Amino acid sequence: MSKIALYAGSFDPVSNGHLNLIQRGAALFDQLIVAVATNTSKKSLFTTDEKVQLMQENLTHLPNVTVVQHTGGLTIDLAKEWNATVLLRGIRNVKDFEYEADVAAMNKTQNKEIETVFLTADEKYRFVSSSLIKEVAMFGGDITGLVPENVNRAMKGKYEIE
Amino acid sequence: MSKIALYAGSFDPVSNGHLNLIQRGAALFDQLIVAVATNTSKKSLFTTDEKVQLMQENLTHLPNVTVVQHTGGLTIDLAKEWNATVLLRGIRNVKDFEYEADVAAMNKTQNKEIETVFLTADEKYRFVSSSLIKEVAMFGGDITGLVPENVNRAMKGKYEIE
Amino acid sequence: MSKIALYAGSFDPVSNGHLNLIQRGAALFDQLIVAVATNTSKKSLFTTDEKVQLMQENLTHLPNVTVVQHTGGLTIDLAKEWNATVLLRGIRNVKDFEYEADVAAMNKTQNKEIETVFLTADEKYRFVSSSLIKEVAMFGGDITGLVPENVNRAMKGKYEIE
Amino acid sequence: MSKIALYAGSFDPVSNGHLNLIQRGAALFDQLIVAVATNTSKKSLFTTDEKVQLMQENLTHLPNVTVVQHTGGLTIDLAKEWNATVLLRGIRNVKDFEYEADVAAMNKTQNKEIETVFLTADEKYRFVSSSLIKEVAMFGGDITGLVPENVNRAMKGKYEIE
Amino acid sequence: MSKIALYAGSFDPVSNGHLNLIQRGAALFDQLIVAVATNTSKKSLFTTDEKVQLMQENLTHLPNVTVVQHTGGLTIDLAKEWNATVLLRGIRNVKDFEYEADVAAMNKTQNKEIETVFLTADEKYRFVSSSLIKEVAMFGGDITGLVPENVNRAMKGKYEIE
Amino acid sequence: MSKIALYAGSFDPVSNGHLNLIQRGAALFDQLIVAVATNTSKKSLFTTDEKVQLMQENLTHLPNVTVVQHTGGLTIDLAKEWNATVLLRGIRNVKDFEYEADVAAMNKTQNKEIETVFLTADEKYRFVSSSLIKEVAMFGGDITGLVPENVNRAMKGKYEIE
Repeated sequence: MSKIALYAGSFDPVSNGHLNLIQRGAALFDQLIVAVATNTSKKSLFTTDEKVQLMQENLTHLPNVTVVQHTGGLTIDLAKEWNATVLLRGIRNVKDFEYEADVAAMNKTQNKEIETVFLTADEKYRFVSSSLIKEVAMFGGDITGLVPENVNRAMKGKYEIE
Repeated sequence: MSKIALYAGSFDPVSNGHLNLIQRGAALFDQLIVAVATNTSKKSLFTTDEKVQLMQENLTHLPNVTVVQHTGGLTIDLAKEWNATVLLRGIRNVKDFEYEADVAAMNKTQNKEIETVFLTADEKYRFVSSSLIKEVAMFGGDITGLVPENVNRAMKGKYEIE
Repeated sequence: MSKIALYAGSFDPVSNGHLNLIQRGAALFDQLIVAVATNTSKKSLFTTDEKVQLMQENLTHLPNVTVVQHTGGLTIDLAKEWNATVLLRGIRNVKDFEYEADVAAMNKTQNKEIETVFLTADEKYRFVSSSLIKEVAMFGGDITGLVPENVNRAMKGKYEIE
Repeated sequence: MSKIALYAGSFDPVSNGHLNLIQRGAALFDQLIVAVATNTSKKSLFTTDEKVQLMQENLTHLPNVTVVQHTGGLTIDLAKEWNATVLLRGIRNVKDFEYEADVAAMNKTQNKEIETVFLTADEKYRFVSSSLIKEVAMFGGDITGLVPENVNRAMKGKYEIE
Repeated sequence: MSKIALYAGSFDPVSNGHLNLIQRGAALFDQLIVAVATNTSKKSLFTTDEKVQLMQENLTHLPNVTVVQHTGGLTIDLAKEWNATVLLRGIRNVKDFEYEADVAAMNKTQNKEIETVFLTADEKYRFVSSSLIKEVAMFGGDITGLVPENVNRAMKGKYEIE
Repeated sequence: MSKIALYAGSFDPVSNGHLNLIQRGAALFDQLIVAVATNTSKKSLFTTDEKVQLMQENLTHLPNVTVVQHTGGLTIDLAKEWNATVLLRGIRNVKDFEYEADVAAMNKTQNKEIETVFLTADEKYRFVSSSLIKEVAMFGGDITGLVPENVNRAMKGKYEIE
């Protein structure tokens, strides 16, 4: 049976933790759709176009991964659109777990056919969140090792200009 | 001894989880005051008047429940006003528990006579929060079963107009 | 309406945390049954008779509290026997919360009419458990302030003899 | 790509929570191996043979599920033996999450090719554990709805005889 | 060896929980730098100058404590500036723990020589946060016992004027 | 001021997580006493003498660390004996945090002068516990990287013989 999974996030910016999860997800399913969300509610550092490009440049070695824009609407609807029957999520800690378990249960009420599958974050990236990365980078901290090379460069650009 | 309990919340919107808690609270105490808060800090979907009406329409079968507006001030002061000696709270998860335990301890510093009593959320509604309901409804998701009928209708109205 | 609550535990030994909870429970309900469990699975420090006596001596000022033996069987059955419709439980921390929420949900499957009501432990007693008390007392530590006077004396007797 | 997953447990007894997880796991992967552990350390209610039979009788409708005995050794070694590259685990609560995340990380140190995939328990079964089921059944409680029919009968047999 | 520790926070307002931590930290290390952050992102009740003064007035009995302004930048950089090799943090609950553990791990990526040391909050102050204090004080609640005398006065001034 | 810290544990066996903590603790305080507990309640894999030796062989590069036997009694009493005013503890996860916070609060009731200081486990060792190590090694798993070389050898010896 062919399984398509969807991994949605705001990826502002994409981190090595995200990439690690995508790599593992790509090995689990026949196809993995990575949906880059347009963050309307809070101001994001990167535009959706920028985020998609930064993401894609890091996934060229994974032929079964497709990066798409998630311009709004329910994740469950986007999944249907792409024939995905699996939602992939990473869990770093207890706070993540409780939030993600609630969302998964909510999604079950919308579509019983779609299953949410969780991977725990690799130990190396358990503490890495996009917001913490931004806090560090904003004040000139070194985020090498936490984000891919192209994101590192792009963030330097962002914080120099602003 | 006659016991009056107070259950305060922003109920934006009231969910079946809230109604389940109110029903159980009404069976525990002689009178249950449901205090609908006027949410000043964050923009709410419904006005306080709307919220009170949506609440009341669902509580007509519970003669010992009274719905009131909580227009500001400490919950502990509202309790005193209504002769309530019990604050009723629901806990859905660890995050709720930690927050509610802190508030209960703080309230003890204000009035030692008022006790906070907790019920754990019914398993059916553990994942249901007003904010998650709004996120789903906003994008056209189906919230039947999570909110009462009148709220379901009212939310459709809200999101159509806006 | 007259409300009878049941508070069951192994109380080996009864601590000031337990007594604090009983006092608060006695103020919430018309009658509070304190059920002292006969612990069959693990070796207990005190016999059930001893535990009942140590408990009773500390509750003489609470006329609506009755101490009984819980010699086995489901707590929910004991509740029915005493016409209790409420199970009272204390929660000290996240571990307690998760365990107690499971038991409460399980009890609902046995009897929908019986409600489990939770109080959070008083800040003074949040860290106090019977097992920690025994560990400290066993090595000659001072448990004054953590247990009532009669338990303090009785524990000294136990650890001297053994 | 063909994916084989392994779901190991002691299943003493198998519950509806386990069966729910197996059904969902069977829909996610091409083949699901259910490994029934021989519990050597703690006395189990059912023998491994009994557990395997009780399990199999409930999985006849799932052609891609195979029940095997896990007679000792590392789960990761059993996985290799069955060509499974995925370990399937259910998470009910925070305690489960922390334990399972540790085991998954440990397993990564043993075999980087094997991925642990988590599903959160269905809300209906979040509070259901084999140990809680045994506690209830031992005292004559009703576990209908928590375990499959054949387990319900078998447990009555066990507790009548003993 | 001479050890200098840094304790940074927004202290809006400083509470007795903070003071308890500072006192304990001052006893652990040769020198303790208390860094009062200029909170740019959210509107603060007190200005940084006010916060520094309110802090200093309460620390006159601790000769090895120095209060400084933290006007921006990484805490780890401020630590270096003051020759501090230890970051001191208090943990009140699970939420704090998870957040602080992430920040500590992030700081290790910036400077391996700087260690984060945690103290658990005194039981008396476990529920006390600056935000909860403000919520209570804003509505005329009594925060005596939760904040030092000068803060109590200053907060009354703030809420009267506004 | 000269600060002596005590780090007590059963170390059955000592892991790289323990050694990491000891190294960091040795850098924080003037002297660090590592107290190897004689585990009376549960059967331990190594004798206390073996554990002390395995520990000492790994600490020769840390001149301010002393390994002692903890043959019973309260940790707080052992601390006093060695003039330690600090108890050092590592926290790996929420479960650790809650347990350790309780013990620290209990120790404060025994001796107000002794402070418990926590370090969070290095990300590399967050999932590593002595019990998990034993489970893996017992079934022939590879624990290289999780324990020091001498422990790896000693464990092979233990499990071959038994």
